[in-house]
Amino acid sequence: MIKAGIVGGTGYTGVELLRLLAAHPDVSLAVITSRGDAGIAVATMFPNLRGHVSLRFTEPDTQTLADCDVVFFATPNGTAMKMAPALLAAGVKVIDLAADFRLKDPVQWQQWYGMPHACPELLSEAVYGLPEVNRALLHKARLVANPGCYPTAVQLGFLPLLENGLVADDRLVADVKSGASGAGRKAEVATLMSEIGESFKAYAVPGHRHLPEILQELAAVAGHAVGLTFVPHLLPMIRGIHATLYATLKDKSTDLQALYEQRYADEPFVDVLPAGAHPDTRSVRGANVCRVAVHRPQDSDTVVVLAVIDNLVKGAAGQAVQNMNLVFGLDERAGLGGIALLP
Amino acid sequence: MIKAGIVGGTGYTGVELLRLLAAHPDVSLAVITSRGDAGIAVATMFPNLRGHVSLRFTEPDTQTLADCDVVFFATPNGTAMKMAPALLAAGVKVIDLAADFRLKDPVQWQQWYGMPHACPELLSEAVYGLPEVNRALLHKARLVANPGCYPTAVQLGFLPLLENGLVADDRLVADVKSGASGAGRKAEVATLMSEIGESFKAYAVPGHRHLPEILQELAAVAGHAVGLTFVPHLLPMIRGIHATLYATLKDKSTDLQALYEQRYADEPFVDVLPAGAHPDTRSVRGANVCRVAVHRPQDSDTVVVLAVIDNLVKGAAGQAVQNMNLVFGLDERAGLGGIALLP
Amino acid sequence: MIKAGIVGGTGYTGVELLRLLAAHPDVSLAVITSRGDAGIAVATMFPNLRGHVSLRFTEPDTQTLADCDVVFFATPNGTAMKMAPALLAAGVKVIDLAADFRLKDPVQWQQWYGMPHACPELLSEAVYGLPEVNRALLHKARLVANPGCYPTAVQLGFLPLLENGLVADDRLVADVKSGASGAGRKAEVATLMSEIGESFKAYAVPGHRHLPEILQELAAVAGHAVGLTFVPHLLPMIRGIHATLYATLKDKSTDLQALYEQRYADEPFVDVLPAGAHPDTRSVRGANVCRVAVHRPQDSDTVVVLAVIDNLVKGAAGQAVQNMNLVFGLDERAGLGGIALLP
Amino acid sequence: MIKAGIVGGTGYTGVELLRLLAAHPDVSLAVITSRGDAGIAVATMFPNLRGHVSLRFTEPDTQTLADCDVVFFATPNGTAMKMAPALLAAGVKVIDLAADFRLKDPVQWQQWYGMPHACPELLSEAVYGLPEVNRALLHKARLVANPGCYPTAVQLGFLPLLENGLVADDRLVADVKSGASGAGRKAEVATLMSEIGESFKAYAVPGHRHLPEILQELAAVAGHAVGLTFVPHLLPMIRGIHATLYATLKDKSTDLQALYEQRYADEPFVDVLPAGAHPDTRSVRGANVCRVAVHRPQDSDTVVVLAVIDNLVKGAAGQAVQNMNLVFGLDERAGLGGIALLP
Repeated sequence: MIKAGIVGGTGYTGVELLRLLAAHPDVSLAVITSRGDAGIAVATMFPNLRGHVSLRFTEPDTQTLADCDVVFFATPNGTAMKMAPALLAAGVKVIDLAADFRLKDPVQWQQWYGMPHACPELLSEAVYGLPEVNRALLHKARLVANPGCYPTAVQLGFLPLLENGLVADDRLVADVKSGASGAGRKAEVATLMSEIGESFKAYAVPGHRHLPEILQELAAVAGHAVGLTFVPHLLPMIRGIHATLYATLKDKSTDLQALYEQRYADEPFVDVLPAGAHPDTRSVRGANVCRVAVHRPQDSDTVVVLAVIDNLVKGAAGQAVQNMNLVFGLDERAGLGGIALLP
Repeated sequence: MIKAGIVGGTGYTGVELLRLLAAHPDVSLAVITSRGDAGIAVATMFPNLRGHVSLRFTEPDTQTLADCDVVFFATPNGTAMKMAPALLAAGVKVIDLAADFRLKDPVQWQQWYGMPHACPELLSEAVYGLPEVNRALLHKARLVANPGCYPTAVQLGFLPLLENGLVADDRLVADVKSGASGAGRKAEVATLMSEIGESFKAYAVPGHRHLPEILQELAAVAGHAVGLTFVPHLLPMIRGIHATLYATLKDKSTDLQALYEQRYADEPFVDVLPAGAHPDTRSVRGANVCRVAVHRPQDSDTVVVLAVIDNLVKGAAGQAVQNMNLVFGLDERAGLGGIALLP
Repeated sequence: MIKAGIVGGTGYTGVELLRLLAAHPDVSLAVITSRGDAGIAVATMFPNLRGHVSLRFTEPDTQTLADCDVVFFATPNGTAMKMAPALLAAGVKVIDLAADFRLKDPVQWQQWYGMPHACPELLSEAVYGLPEVNRALLHKARLVANPGCYPTAVQLGFLPLLENGLVADDRLVADVKSGASGAGRKAEVATLMSEIGESFKAYAVPGHRHLPEILQELAAVAGHAVGLTFVPHLLPMIRGIHATLYATLKDKSTDLQALYEQRYADEPFVDVLPAGAHPDTRSVRGANVCRVAVHRPQDSDTVVVLAVIDNLVKGAAGQAVQNMNLVFGLDERAGLGGIALLP
Repeated sequence: MIKAGIVGGTGYTGVELLRLLAAHPDVSLAVITSRGDAGIAVATMFPNLRGHVSLRFTEPDTQTLADCDVVFFATPNGTAMKMAPALLAAGVKVIDLAADFRLKDPVQWQQWYGMPHACPELLSEAVYGLPEVNRALLHKARLVANPGCYPTAVQLGFLPLLENGLVADDRLVADVKSGASGAGRKAEVATLMSEIGESFKAYAVPGHRHLPEILQELAAVAGHAVGLTFVPHLLPMIRGIHATLYATLKDKSTDLQALYEQRYADEPFVDVLPAGAHPDTRSVRGANVCRVAVHRPQDSDTVVVLAVIDNLVKGAAGQAVQNMNLVFGLDERAGLGGIALLP
């Protein structure tokens, strides 16, 4: 059994990690920390876990965490980078669900996250945890940078096009919509039910922190810098991301449906829908899967890709478990067989 | 492996049954019928099942169904009673998720359901599938009447009080609220998003079909007829029932918390919350569990019980699987270990 | 024109007051204060007011407020009681939308609100602003205690029964459900979209601050103390309160429909629905009206009353404007003719 | 007073028209028809109208309608074109909220709407009712084709760019999201609460009926055919459309903020937000206004326009009243001063 610890388990990615790990056949939950809620039973805060998780939150303590085989960080940005070096030194595998190890360039990191990076020497070692691109590297990784939710959906949608150089990649558009749980479990007016229920808006159009991450990874796939307009929106619902992606094809004759089906044929967690389909976010609610459809409307040279994930699962906790499975040489699907809840 | 069939799988209880049975370790899904959608792949209608269920809907056919070990009816009222006799004769166990076998009195059935009963001779044999009351009978049942969603929540909330004669049971109040999925997957104006989103109302106050079922079963527990005012309400959400139950205590000194904890100590799917708690429906979303809390506000002699279930799980498909487990002598919990999805 | 000021205009009752007063034919908005947001244009915070309200928030300042004819307090509890004496002394009419002047007994106030009352000498003068009961007093009031949202719905539902002594009023039940805007515009985890969307629960069953207010006012109507079990619930929506009220009739033969229709025949803002109807909260969304239906299910002696209001309108800002109209001798309906938004 | 009739008043645009016309100072509602619900009081079906509208639905009857000054069609596509000629002949002004008169080309109309046009001779006379473009024509129109909801938002967003030839208009992108009320009040599984609540999806990506309408009108503004990829999405809420529009600028140095502010400076119902703002749909809920913001993220040459309307108001009934005001020479704002409901 893999002994797992979670740092910062009081947010939505934390409770989702707990839900998945509690049911994972190869994992025993050893410790979960929360500075503010130490002493409280996890299942008191998250009653869905009653009968499944008996742990209490404890103060974060490197000693205890160092006894784990793997430690997940479900913390705000800037926490994992402070604790990771000691844990790695103690032989613990580290999977960070925040942004600390996603960008390769510490200068860029500081620009977007407003603080200097605490361990820039680890940035090159950290493996960006998108298994559909970096599976081989993940098998031997010590430190995994779990991708952001928006970046997961956008990359899985664009990958087949960029890998094959099929579109004008200096002018990509990603119009992406997220449920409110992506904003986390923080006391803020902006994400109150009364603020975002029954309403819809774009936000952060001038620049969102997930933009440099997407640009970095798409460039790696394309082999050169790409141009992207990324517009995130906030949906009046809890779980789910829907990316609507636009690009101009160099050649209209490519069989896009076949391209996507072949690219993802062996991927356990990417599902290419039949031609003409429109995935809805509920079809992935609670499940570690990205469903994708590809369209070329009106016989034009504009390709439209629709990609949906559950931001807390394939966009966060589920992908982290998938990465853990890879790091420890388990079946990549272990503990991730849950079927989406519909309706 | 138990060979299972489903009649009428295009509704919400149908897709939920499929979700649960597809993951059940002792069940193989053999057939699922739909008169209107024969030939269509189940996963085309319900894309959450893609990769998990490969069946296609077929025309209902008694011959094929007779090859199953168990047949679930997820049909409108009035269908199971027509097909059950032949299946029972063929040695198939029958679990009806509709109302056909819930009432013992065929005259009353006709009054509330507007048609004569097709096989009144089976009504006395049918076991009312509330395992917390009828577990022993269910172990040897051929024909199970799976309880309604409202009745499940109301009964589990009232049971400890009525079994022990602790309240004035001629004047019970059940103020119950249900998500929209309880109304089924039917094309109706009344359950459109635009009709019931962002709104709330009571309905069927003069009389709801679940009332006689509740009265029959509570009387069986109390040992005499009871009086109940039952007011159902429609919530602007999809899954979940919340029953708020009121009764007058004969004796204020009873330790209600202890009473509930003891009554349900050995029940795998009833969870009594700590004193002072308020269960929310999301804590049971997707899970086969009823969470209950008991209050006596202001030191009065009025007891207030709060009980929540997922109407599609403990209120329908999950309870049906629990009943199947009992009928076939499996671990009652088999296939029902899923943790509720929160948030 | 009546010169109106608002203290504390950054919450939901504040913006709703602004919406109503901006369209009121006899009112000019003179000042709106907010300690935290002074200098900001009101319409920047609440863009629905763009083109309708050009004021900026200012620091609360008694001098400026004293130039108004009426000052509304849309503040947290405990603010109005500190500023009201000076304003009253300056001849300003005061309408408090918080709880400061709702309870007659300062000891009880301190028990429920956790602080000593700052001007107990005003409690007896303050008029409880439920026009359907206190219209005559409101015509000459200087200081109005605007009722709470739950108390408005509960009282309007019970009034005809209690005024006429028709029910056993030692054992009333009020099962009441509120939209999230009733919790205000405060940064709190508990009212995040991700916490209360797609879920439902009771809260504060052991005791809610609106309970003593309801008990006080119902007792005034009944002529003696009443017994009430009051259970509030939180709905996954923004606006609307639905009260489901239960009482035992002394005499089943009373024509309840006629009773309610006659009681409210001359009330401009209480609408008794036809027999058998079920009001939905959307039918009053944005409108200053309470719609009521009365049922006696199953020919029992239990009466069930259904009453709906928009908690921000008839439950707060609309009722405050109605009270202002009465205080200043205007047409009670002035500025309150808006039709509810459906769907 | 203008005597107004409504044909087909049982849908959402119908009830919204009634809400607006009932409060219009210059209109008297004379007749409202519904083939299926003749005899029923309008306020029985739509209880928000109780106390405001006393009409009953009647059978559609050309004679009665011919006595009106104006007749609104809030009918399914294909109805207005059958009745309009007789009404026009009788001197009645006709405003069609459906699609019958929106396309100039009857062949194209038949392609998209699946039936031959009944009065193609009227297509050239019909004025497309977007006042921000066609105000002068509307002043003297007999027959108004009220724009679709999507087309209204998309056009108002693109207009300043296309009128001035500032973008590459062969490759426009309109990613548009609509609340469920846009799908109408029809009994359909696809728009049930349980189908679209807590979920999000694109639909009709291969081709939506509003596409030819948008292309026709944008071409008229641009002076030549334009290329547009139009992707509609369905939001889990009731009212509101949010258009996110993308285009490539020919020249990055244009002051887009000034352009938009000047273009709409005199428009009573288009509100250009300050630079950097993100409109939310709730800021226009119930109000006849389009709020627009314009961005050029990352200093790129891609312009992003955000435009929101209430699909039932500026996207349907409100715009119809605005058009009526123009046709009859009233103040364009008459009856349309309502402030949006927020929260």
